Amino acid sequence: MSSTENILSIFALGGVNEIGKNMYAIQFANDIILIDCGSKFPDESLLGIDLIIPDITYLQDNKEKIRGLLVTHGHEDHIGGIPYLLKQLNIPIYATRLTLGLIEIKLKEHGLLGDSQLELINSDSDLHFGEIRVTFFKTNHSIPDCLGIVFQTPEGTVVHTGDFKFDLTPVNNQYPDIHRMAEIGRNGVLVLLSESTNAERPGSTPSERMVGEHIEEAFKKANRKIIISTFASNVHRVQQIVDASLKTDRKLALLGRSMVNVVSVAMEQGYLTVPEGMLIDAQEINSFAPEKVTILCTGSQGEPLAVLARLASSNYRDVEILPEDTVIFAASPIPGNERNVTKIIDNLYQLGAKVIYGSGSSTGMHVSGHAYQEELKLMLTLMKPKYLIPIHGELRMLHHHRSLAESVGIEKENTFIISNGDVVDVKESEARQTRKIPSGNIYVDGMGVGDVGNIVLRDRKQLAEDGMLVIVVTLSKAERKIISGPDTISRGFVYTRDSDNLIKEVNRLVVTAIKELQEVNRHQWSVMKQNIKKSVGQYLYSKTKRKPMILPIIIEL
Amino acid sequence: MSSTENILSIFALGGVNEIGKNMYAIQFANDIILIDCGSKFPDESLLGIDLIIPDITYLQDNKEKIRGLLVTHGHEDHIGGIPYLLKQLNIPIYATRLTLGLIEIKLKEHGLLGDSQLELINSDSDLHFGEIRVTFFKTNHSIPDCLGIVFQTPEGTVVHTGDFKFDLTPVNNQYPDIHRMAEIGRNGVLVLLSESTNAERPGSTPSERMVGEHIEEAFKKANRKIIISTFASNVHRVQQIVDASLKTDRKLALLGRSMVNVVSVAMEQGYLTVPEGMLIDAQEINSFAPEKVTILCTGSQGEPLAVLARLASSNYRDVEILPEDTVIFAASPIPGNERNVTKIIDNLYQLGAKVIYGSGSSTGMHVSGHAYQEELKLMLTLMKPKYLIPIHGELRMLHHHRSLAESVGIEKENTFIISNGDVVDVKESEARQTRKIPSGNIYVDGMGVGDVGNIVLRDRKQLAEDGMLVIVVTLSKAERKIISGPDTISRGFVYTRDSDNLIKEVNRLVVTAIKELQEVNRHQWSVMKQNIKKSVGQYLYSKTKRKPMILPIIIEL
Repeated sequence: MSSTENILSIFALGGVNEIGKNMYAIQFANDIILIDCGSKFPDESLLGIDLIIPDITYLQDNKEKIRGLLVTHGHEDHIGGIPYLLKQLNIPIYATRLTLGLIEIKLKEHGLLGDSQLELINSDSDLHFGEIRVTFFKTNHSIPDCLGIVFQTPEGTVVHTGDFKFDLTPVNNQYPDIHRMAEIGRNGVLVLLSESTNAERPGSTPSERMVGEHIEEAFKKANRKIIISTFASNVHRVQQIVDASLKTDRKLALLGRSMVNVVSVAMEQGYLTVPEGMLIDAQEINSFAPEKVTILCTGSQGEPLAVLARLASSNYRDVEILPEDTVIFAASPIPGNERNVTKIIDNLYQLGAKVIYGSGSSTGMHVSGHAYQEELKLMLTLMKPKYLIPIHGELRMLHHHRSLAESVGIEKENTFIISNGDVVDVKESEARQTRKIPSGNIYVDGMGVGDVGNIVLRDRKQLAEDGMLVIVVTLSKAERKIISGPDTISRGFVYTRDSDNLIKEVNRLVVTAIKELQEVNRHQWSVMKQNIKKSVGQYLYSKTKRKPMILPIIIEL
Repeated sequence: MSSTENILSIFALGGVNEIGKNMYAIQFANDIILIDCGSKFPDESLLGIDLIIPDITYLQDNKEKIRGLLVTHGHEDHIGGIPYLLKQLNIPIYATRLTLGLIEIKLKEHGLLGDSQLELINSDSDLHFGEIRVTFFKTNHSIPDCLGIVFQTPEGTVVHTGDFKFDLTPVNNQYPDIHRMAEIGRNGVLVLLSESTNAERPGSTPSERMVGEHIEEAFKKANRKIIISTFASNVHRVQQIVDASLKTDRKLALLGRSMVNVVSVAMEQGYLTVPEGMLIDAQEINSFAPEKVTILCTGSQGEPLAVLARLASSNYRDVEILPEDTVIFAASPIPGNERNVTKIIDNLYQLGAKVIYGSGSSTGMHVSGHAYQEELKLMLTLMKPKYLIPIHGELRMLHHHRSLAESVGIEKENTFIISNGDVVDVKESEARQTRKIPSGNIYVDGMGVGDVGNIVLRDRKQLAEDGMLVIVVTLSKAERKIISGPDTISRGFVYTRDSDNLIKEVNRLVVTAIKELQEVNRHQWSVMKQNIKKSVGQYLYSKTKRKPMILPIIIEL
């Protein structure tokens, strides 16, 4: 990127063509401002991978230009990559109180808290980085303290919505600041980056308050223990669970590390009001009458190691789910988690529990935190941008968002559907998308960041599907004769009485392959290994229709 | 099972607590009649497994009592296990014309067609097996020619619904025979086995005819090629696609092996009417104007090797998807397939296609073939059984079905929620569930049936998540010294510059472990291998937080 030109550039390092690992950047001249740094959970094809974070090669190559990271809110897909970013680039982080609290938990776990520059901001903050002025506006989402961001640059104004919905009857006064948004729009917006999660859904998402009403109703009907699970970070919903417990005279136990962590931060900072004496420990649950207890726990997405899964399989030390207990899923399964969730529901039925579950609309126990089509159109109408870059969504969602923009008067060619790494350059108020910078997925596996790549994953896939066969042969260097082996060991391949004959034939093929090469006086290991792989592989496929990994090991003595 | 007592027994070998591999049995005295023999697709935790079929140990132990297999309809979860059953037990199979046609395709693929006893029946058939009389009734479902079955035994009447819905405006006159059902109920039903797939859904499933109207509408709007995908076996829907093509003056190309197979059988046997000259080959598509072509293809569930996935990734020889082509998903994704389907949708947007997708209710392009709650209540009301055994569903669905039965007057304790292998015995019109017979999942992997068990799967899981490390050492028997190695080879574990140091340390640990044992003069391989595994495993976990499979191979010369 030629830094002598004073152009405005906008790009994503994560978050477009995907849900997760959001990371966006605004650059003007020699100043880069980052927005969010999220992580993403791998799908099942990425065997053994724990987490995906954005590739920040471009930022490392331009580290002297980076002025800071602005964080819109405290969800994993916006903050999960921060510890990994800070290990590479020590830059200041700007966020609101709750968001900072959640980031601090993360940094502590990575031993990074002491060295980090954390800057507290609020919706009235006013920051300047080079020629870019940054201000904010309040939005409403499924976690408190969310921000939209306004970048005033010499080229014009860029607005980033963060994640939002328009909940006009929010819990805990988390109103979206529509007047401020109108003012921003009136002053002129050149480029709007707006989230697209629910661009496929017609209408408007219901208010969080509706969930509270349904929770209260269910609590009143329950005549024994209540076990309720939701996203720990949905502080609004947690507040409503606290309120319903208060109204039905129940104590509240919090189970699960992230639930305890987030609730503590939210209480400390005044986002959550829990009456004195309401909270009890897991060990105290059994000392209260069942109709006097609410358990709020992690695991609403069916995570196999979280509390709800363990309760459902009677595998949690302090508490047992008993017949007539009520279990409430106050969250809809995220696509990909359905099977894990339904397994838990089945286990709960087995225990005799009453289970309230299903998509949000059917039980009223969940509403989305992301704007539906009518709300996206409202944001577009308020901001009246010349250009739209739909972000935070898979490709079809971005396309739907473009159609919505068209319907409120934004020309189709003024919506840029970009990929991670595509750069939109703005010069003299004209935007063009022509360049690309490095971008991609970095895999976190255990303690390794980026050390698992395509070769390792390809091997894992083969091992996962058909297992492997190790064949060891020792040859004498002098006489070129087999002095030990072939010894064959299989794992994940076959394990039956029949496999004896299979293995015998494999060994015979190995001996043949070695002899053939010796006769023509070729003795290279690589050729020998290739021939063994080929003849054994063909034989095994013909007998089993499987393709295990074949690993010949030849030792020469 | 004591065969001297003339009791009536009912059990499932597959299909309860799961969706898939349906297989039920009715036994009276020494006569066993089987109902359906389905297969099930594995979820992603069953690495490398192709198919799951029922364990038929009990049937093999009682083979002289088995009189035949009755098949309710031609879906995979009802016929997919038949080839594997016939390889063990050569018994007669009774099914209607289309169902037999689909079974024949399967048997041909397994080279079993010549030896099989296939008996054509229809809804008027009347069979006798020992003291059991078997009659049938017509039902409606998402494939033609479906049957419910009535078993009249000395103990009373047992009814098996098969899969059904009540579509009162069906395509191709596939009416459910409500009058016959009423008559069966009037004559008294002791036990009803009724399917539970949609027991969680309130209301009634819409008519298949509604889908036809939406298809026609979409066809009229399309101004270039139409690519439409649905289940090949949904002959009703295929008929409506044919009809819409006719009305909009389009030729029809069938792509995908199962689509071609099923449509051929359905046409041959008169279930599907396709006008002369309408069908064209894949190679002919490009010789017609785009607005004159419909492509009907497999892959609506996102199967990576099916036609639709290949078209979407521009990887199909004869046809290309071009901008403004219309692609219609005339099927909802089955739970677990959502991610594969959305990947394809995104690829189609990338190609510029118009894509019509989404859950059936939102696009009108799919309706379920399974009864919703009001329809299940109608079946219960028509049959008025004393006992209900809810079948064909996961546990929560069976529980919902029990609640529905209670709401129409069947006492809660008269609904038996059973597992595969549980036997319900009826004596003097009283049913009790006390015994269990062997049952379970048999895994098909390539050509192997039942040779992949828990050990192989556990190994595959470890290999999949963290890969493996093979360590080869050669020892001299005489001097007990290392004469070659350790040589370490990893696959699916790490693959970076850093791994050199890791491997060096591993080799050092192996040498230490061997020497320690030699000093105390213990030289057993198993102890040596255990020690190597332990010390290398601990080291690698401390460095990487990964647990690869460690495979020490010790050669003594």
